[in-house]
Amino acid sequence: MFYRVNMATLTVTKDAGEQYKGLAGRALTSKIVKIEVDANAHALGKLNKLILAPGFLTGTFAPNAGRMSFGAKSPLTGTIKESNVGGFIGHKLARAGAEAIIVEDVAQDGKLYTMVVTKDGIKLEECPELKGLNIYDATAKLQEKYGLKVGIAAIGTAGENKMASACIGATDQEGEPTRQAGRGGLGAVMGSKGLKAIVVDDAGAANIAFANEEAFRAGAKKLAKALTSHAVTGQGLPTYGTNVLVNILNEAGGLPTRNFSEGRFENANDTGGETMYETIKARGANPTHACSPGCIIRCSQTYKNKEGEMVTGGLEYETCWGFGANIGANNLDDIAYMNRLCDDYGVDTIEMAVTLGVAMEAGIAKFGDSKAAIELIHEMGKATPLGRILGAGAAVTGKVYGVTRVPTVKGQGIPAYDPRAVKGVGVTYATTTMGADHTAGYVVATNILGVSGKTDPLAAEGQVDLSRNFQIATSFIDTTGLCLFVAFAILDIPEGMEGIVEMCNARYGWNYTLNDYLELGKEVLRDERAFNKAAGFGDESDDLPDFFRFESLKPHDVVFDIPKEELKQVFNF
Amino acid sequence: MFYRVNMATLTVTKDAGEQYKGLAGRALTSKIVKIEVDANAHALGKLNKLILAPGFLTGTFAPNAGRMSFGAKSPLTGTIKESNVGGFIGHKLARAGAEAIIVEDVAQDGKLYTMVVTKDGIKLEECPELKGLNIYDATAKLQEKYGLKVGIAAIGTAGENKMASACIGATDQEGEPTRQAGRGGLGAVMGSKGLKAIVVDDAGAANIAFANEEAFRAGAKKLAKALTSHAVTGQGLPTYGTNVLVNILNEAGGLPTRNFSEGRFENANDTGGETMYETIKARGANPTHACSPGCIIRCSQTYKNKEGEMVTGGLEYETCWGFGANIGANNLDDIAYMNRLCDDYGVDTIEMAVTLGVAMEAGIAKFGDSKAAIELIHEMGKATPLGRILGAGAAVTGKVYGVTRVPTVKGQGIPAYDPRAVKGVGVTYATTTMGADHTAGYVVATNILGVSGKTDPLAAEGQVDLSRNFQIATSFIDTTGLCLFVAFAILDIPEGMEGIVEMCNARYGWNYTLNDYLELGKEVLRDERAFNKAAGFGDESDDLPDFFRFESLKPHDVVFDIPKEELKQVFNF
Repeated sequence: MFYRVNMATLTVTKDAGEQYKGLAGRALTSKIVKIEVDANAHALGKLNKLILAPGFLTGTFAPNAGRMSFGAKSPLTGTIKESNVGGFIGHKLARAGAEAIIVEDVAQDGKLYTMVVTKDGIKLEECPELKGLNIYDATAKLQEKYGLKVGIAAIGTAGENKMASACIGATDQEGEPTRQAGRGGLGAVMGSKGLKAIVVDDAGAANIAFANEEAFRAGAKKLAKALTSHAVTGQGLPTYGTNVLVNILNEAGGLPTRNFSEGRFENANDTGGETMYETIKARGANPTHACSPGCIIRCSQTYKNKEGEMVTGGLEYETCWGFGANIGANNLDDIAYMNRLCDDYGVDTIEMAVTLGVAMEAGIAKFGDSKAAIELIHEMGKATPLGRILGAGAAVTGKVYGVTRVPTVKGQGIPAYDPRAVKGVGVTYATTTMGADHTAGYVVATNILGVSGKTDPLAAEGQVDLSRNFQIATSFIDTTGLCLFVAFAILDIPEGMEGIVEMCNARYGWNYTLNDYLELGKEVLRDERAFNKAAGFGDESDDLPDFFRFESLKPHDVVFDIPKEELKQVFNF
Repeated sequence: MFYRVNMATLTVTKDAGEQYKGLAGRALTSKIVKIEVDANAHALGKLNKLILAPGFLTGTFAPNAGRMSFGAKSPLTGTIKESNVGGFIGHKLARAGAEAIIVEDVAQDGKLYTMVVTKDGIKLEECPELKGLNIYDATAKLQEKYGLKVGIAAIGTAGENKMASACIGATDQEGEPTRQAGRGGLGAVMGSKGLKAIVVDDAGAANIAFANEEAFRAGAKKLAKALTSHAVTGQGLPTYGTNVLVNILNEAGGLPTRNFSEGRFENANDTGGETMYETIKARGANPTHACSPGCIIRCSQTYKNKEGEMVTGGLEYETCWGFGANIGANNLDDIAYMNRLCDDYGVDTIEMAVTLGVAMEAGIAKFGDSKAAIELIHEMGKATPLGRILGAGAAVTGKVYGVTRVPTVKGQGIPAYDPRAVKGVGVTYATTTMGADHTAGYVVATNILGVSGKTDPLAAEGQVDLSRNFQIATSFIDTTGLCLFVAFAILDIPEGMEGIVEMCNARYGWNYTLNDYLELGKEVLRDERAFNKAAGFGDESDDLPDFFRFESLKPHDVVFDIPKEELKQVFNF
């Protein structure tokens, strides 16, 4: 069922979504944005739309199929944006029969609403009692009212304040709001519409039907086997989480340190996955946790402070890098606390971390001072003028303070892999439709981890082809509702990819080949690029900030040297 | 002579500029930016260049030929930028024999320099004593050192702080720094290079030579006659200054009021040219003043406060609108004081005014409260976090506060003519290479003033052609060094335009026709568009903010309704 929710008239309509048949997840949100959103729209105005769509496999018993896509025009980048989230809400939404929810227009008189989704439809409930609450408190209040079995997504004060780095925070299986649709400021879009929270209750819903359940089950088994047998998804991620990458990237000289001024951090290990694992175990928290139903990778975790109090969960590598090496700090407890603060106020940890690096470069605080960083995050939460600058993201902070080393592409902060030392992901940053985004084409997998063959991360040659292939495959995976981390396994184990194809076909009664699905991936990218073009982005906007091309990065003394003309070949398909 | 001044090595080189022969003013700065500046450069980084170039006629005895162009990549818009200034400096620079000064790289260790230009060459002198001084004090100190006969351009603290709305302030004939290269943040570019001031001393320089002095003199006479006989340049501007426009635009329903929410201001007359004229006369200041040698329009003035103290000069319509109707205020003394503050701190009054409108929309101060506006300008001067937001301009302020009615194009604030009620200039805002800029194609002349025939300002038809023609002609006029206001006369009086053509030819020994010069104007636009394209701007970036298309403007109840496809025809030449 396709729902349209108009926040100005408070009306809900539904139809079969004939126009969008055969699409789900990112393919669906991007198609709707491309067709229905005026590319010239103000991202926080009435012409923008916020779209929710579970993937092909979301809500089924497929392994790691818990993702739901949010799509809109981004207030951070001005481009199209798809940001997907794990946890419980996608699973519940798919089971409740919602293929897409299209949130239109903006609420009148600054009112706030909760959108309640059940198998029977959608209701908007005014929620003045949630105004000004951050995500943990808002979620708890919603759980008091709707119970613990619902899936919840909410915004914090950052989203209410329409900050361009605001995220949407969603609950995990235990009801903790530790999962985020983080990037691109979609929390601000939600806030601009007067939508404080989304509650999804799948009570009474039937299990998802399959065209061929047996074939589906067989495909699921293939994928599960690939995931458990691959070293990254079967061992590395379950044990250390994504934070296993701190020491790996540091060793590779690609761990951006002190606002991308160096590639290796002297205290990296203090913030890495191994140290985190030992800390979590010593304090009796859980190092290996599944954020969504059916997850067999279980890269999430819970984290307690020295006093044994639960602080946060779902602490990712990019966050540990961002509040660690990138600000020159090595205090894991402070990192965990900053993760909690960002999850609670509702801002993207990557954007906040890149912003803090730029702010420190501007002299607002000293590199290495994580207590000052914590204060700056609180400042953002209080929405003081300084806090609003920070909440608007790294590019705005750089502009406001006249900083020249501002690691952003299309207004979005560059994450935890320096593009000079991991050039393949540099190509992705420069060219993806999303603004700087590692997940859009994670060439780190081959450049650094040796997945799908090992390539030289420092070489310019071949990176464009790699990034193209990763971006196409990723667009498809983001459409399935599978966690992107399945890619590590399926790139090395063909049966895993076969299993995905078989599940998609078996669910809907299709007969598509892998190639057909990759064609869909290409169509997603074409749609997204068409939107961006209509929004004013020319081909030449696909590049990195100038300093990456003339500031040499230690320890390898490398610059980003892939010519702009070659970057244009990424979308040559 | 072409000078290259390297701020990192503190070296000056010179050559004949063979590569750029036949160009001057805007044609020259834009050509150099296009050829020499990496379009992907950070505008405040070492790859940007700041270029000074007098026009074809600057420094001669031609009427109103005092302009000098500054060119660079703009930190405000990310586009190419040409911002020209009257006063004394262009005149002196041309007489000292400098056809172009190309300022390259950035100074080391945050040092500040004064660039001293004489007929014998250029010297850089370190000037720590000027650090932190605003433009009036810095200018006075420079005059103590270099005398009163030099031409000076300097930046204030806004430029030192690299604020994206920082302007460059230049002296008039009396040595008062009342003239600005206002738009596009070129003061921040100057600041980023460590260049605090430019002093031009033409002592001992010979008069500018002519290929045919007699023909030049005849051409000058034709232009002079046109200027004195036309109603706008001969009567309106000399008497009331550009501020004659407040009541005219108000009557036309195109005076943007309270951040572009209405087109007519109930207290407009309190801030208009007629009131200003009476106030100036009553207080014994000068209502009719020539900013540069040879000016016969004399639209400038001096303004005293109630206590009889000199406050400011060169108070333009756009400033009186911006600190008047646009913030809902009607206090002319406060307007004059805000003009002084902006000239002194060194920010563009238009950008600051549009920013204040957006800030008031965000609730930072109340519409109508000009005392609060004054405090906000001081806040900018102090470079507090709030002040830095404001100094970064209207687009950033809107983004930081999540405002949806943000009247900017390509990051630059829209000036004093609402594009819904003066649609021709709306086309210019949307399409010019400069970001929103009325001077780039002042269709107000025909839409409102009836110059070159009267056209309907509310009609969509014909505006694209008008804007195209104005933009081409303007590119040429900005290349001559003539004040743009000559256009009022020459559009109605063909002999005036003939005089310009004859002067350009007679100075250099050329035989070009008007059509040849308009072809040069087209080439300027092509160069600028090529730079912008290389900087990432696509064709679709040429549009107005969405609200102009759906928010109806009182009193005429009009929206901007020229289709985007038609806007693309502006550059169809």
